Amino acid sequence: MNKQQQDQHWVGVDLGGTKILSAVYDRQFQHMGSKRLRTQAERGCEVVIERLIRSIRQSLEKSEVATEKITGIGIGCPGFVDMKTGLVRECVNLSWKDVPLGEIIREHFDCPVYLLNDVDAGVYAEHRFGAATGAENVLGVFPGTGIGGGAVVQGSIVHGPGITAMEIGHVHVVDNGLPCGCGNNGCLETVASRLAIAAAAANACYRGQAPYLASKTGTHVKDIRSGVLAAAIENGDQVIEDIILNACKHMGVVIANYINLLVPEVIILGGGLVEAMPRLFVKNIRNEVNKHVLSIYRKDFRVAAAKLGNYATVMGAASWAAHKIQTLD
Amino acid sequence: MNKQQQDQHWVGVDLGGTKILSAVYDRQFQHMGSKRLRTQAERGCEVVIERLIRSIRQSLEKSEVATEKITGIGIGCPGFVDMKTGLVRECVNLSWKDVPLGEIIREHFDCPVYLLNDVDAGVYAEHRFGAATGAENVLGVFPGTGIGGGAVVQGSIVHGPGITAMEIGHVHVVDNGLPCGCGNNGCLETVASRLAIAAAAANACYRGQAPYLASKTGTHVKDIRSGVLAAAIENGDQVIEDIILNACKHMGVVIANYINLLVPEVIILGGGLVEAMPRLFVKNIRNEVNKHVLSIYRKDFRVAAAKLGNYATVMGAASWAAHKIQTLD
Repeated sequence: MNKQQQDQHWVGVDLGGTKILSAVYDRQFQHMGSKRLRTQAERGCEVVIERLIRSIRQSLEKSEVATEKITGIGIGCPGFVDMKTGLVRECVNLSWKDVPLGEIIREHFDCPVYLLNDVDAGVYAEHRFGAATGAENVLGVFPGTGIGGGAVVQGSIVHGPGITAMEIGHVHVVDNGLPCGCGNNGCLETVASRLAIAAAAANACYRGQAPYLASKTGTHVKDIRSGVLAAAIENGDQVIEDIILNACKHMGVVIANYINLLVPEVIILGGGLVEAMPRLFVKNIRNEVNKHVLSIYRKDFRVAAAKLGNYATVMGAASWAAHKIQTLD
Repeated sequence: MNKQQQDQHWVGVDLGGTKILSAVYDRQFQHMGSKRLRTQAERGCEVVIERLIRSIRQSLEKSEVATEKITGIGIGCPGFVDMKTGLVRECVNLSWKDVPLGEIIREHFDCPVYLLNDVDAGVYAEHRFGAATGAENVLGVFPGTGIGGGAVVQGSIVHGPGITAMEIGHVHVVDNGLPCGCGNNGCLETVASRLAIAAAAANACYRGQAPYLASKTGTHVKDIRSGVLAAAIENGDQVIEDIILNACKHMGVVIANYINLLVPEVIILGGGLVEAMPRLFVKNIRNEVNKHVLSIYRKDFRVAAAKLGNYATVMGAASWAAHKIQTLD
């Protein structure tokens, strides 16, 4: 091992709608230190970028790493980015459009900076260090308020020309289905996101079919989050389990179709809903996938819950920066 | 340019159910000579391999290239192959299972041999030399008796662990749909293949709605092929156009879903049906795709008819062998 390798320090950033998390890693991706700040998106783009820079600086201080020792920075952003140029093309959470974040951070820290989508970063981390270690082709599905998707194909994150890809929440699954936030109808998000599940659960409350949930949240969709849904099932609200099985059916078809096309070795399921009920989601989605996947592919994949939790995006962003710099050599 | 590069000769083979086509290319992929033989699959695996070897030998003779001058051989096979080991895993057309074709041909010609799926080879050729030149990410869809699919992602053919991928004909599109040859129900092939179109056209003949087609083929599905379908539309059988538009609708949804995930720059449409009616397919599939694709991706792709025709698979196989050998260096 040469001096240069010994000195490697990678920074990963998870730029979220509510918080910014920065972490510093050594060359073996051991965590050295991190800093979390509130995003304060409502104060505008410049303030957020200033806070992002501050979170990096403070994570470096905690790690006792000097700024000039950074080998590279990876930043996971919500929304669409141009991975080649480091441009945030569109980010609804932050109300950003065409922000040259990569360039700004590169100039500030005088080191290579790589932007990627936050879900892509999480899936890449699972591929490198988590539930999909050793697999070259990985699909990640993260049902939440929407449904995030990410994919690694032959060891690299899938992306389009100048734009991030894997909008699995907007795969069309229901003809003449409900309107979706994207402007289309019948997208996977309209039937399988946490919001879709919460709306169906609220209806079940109203009909008197989910007494436990009714006692905790009533019909208020905003309050029906992952934890209380899991608790409702544990406390006998069978209808909630049925609603989740319905969501798993739709996700299973979409995942089976993806397997028939790209044949990933591992399907990673993550996000708050899956964290609250990992066995329910893994088992039911695996069953549904097996119904629709070509028989010759049936032995070639496994379904697993994500392992890395809150640090997945920062680890993925940092290790993606390392991958990009090392494959340039 | 060094001596080694000048001397490059690549062989491509298209191993089909009815014919074997071998062709020799120089280092710039100029066609030097080719040989077509009947496959005679019914005479069994050993005879077919012997004929494949003979077709290569005769294409070399025609090209005036000595056997020891071959740099590499690529073989496009129908069905599932293991691209890494050169094993034909399953090929229904030839009734083959687990045939180590790559190894046999490698020993015979004493040069590197690469196996790939025939549709993948065709799409790769379009990416290198045809309608998708310059695009890093390409999706190919070839409606025929079934529906073939192939994809190039970041310059490389997509495949699974030890098996070829892109079974787009078996993407699930109709809940409780017709049984498919694969054992599942409601696959894209059941509603959009030439066979599905021919069956619907035969019904239209029976109902008296397609007088031109009725006069040419009657209700005999086997006779209702691409050319006569195109002629029927030209001769006023409107219902045949409507049947094809329905097939385009289903293909459009599947392609839009693929774009929402992988964001290819070019969608190549090919096969006999598209060759007979290129404008009808390209226009209608583009329209349907635009209905379902995320608006942010709408400008990032184009739909085009394949350009390379009968030589696509051999060119793709030969250039894939070159790509594999050159990226090993």
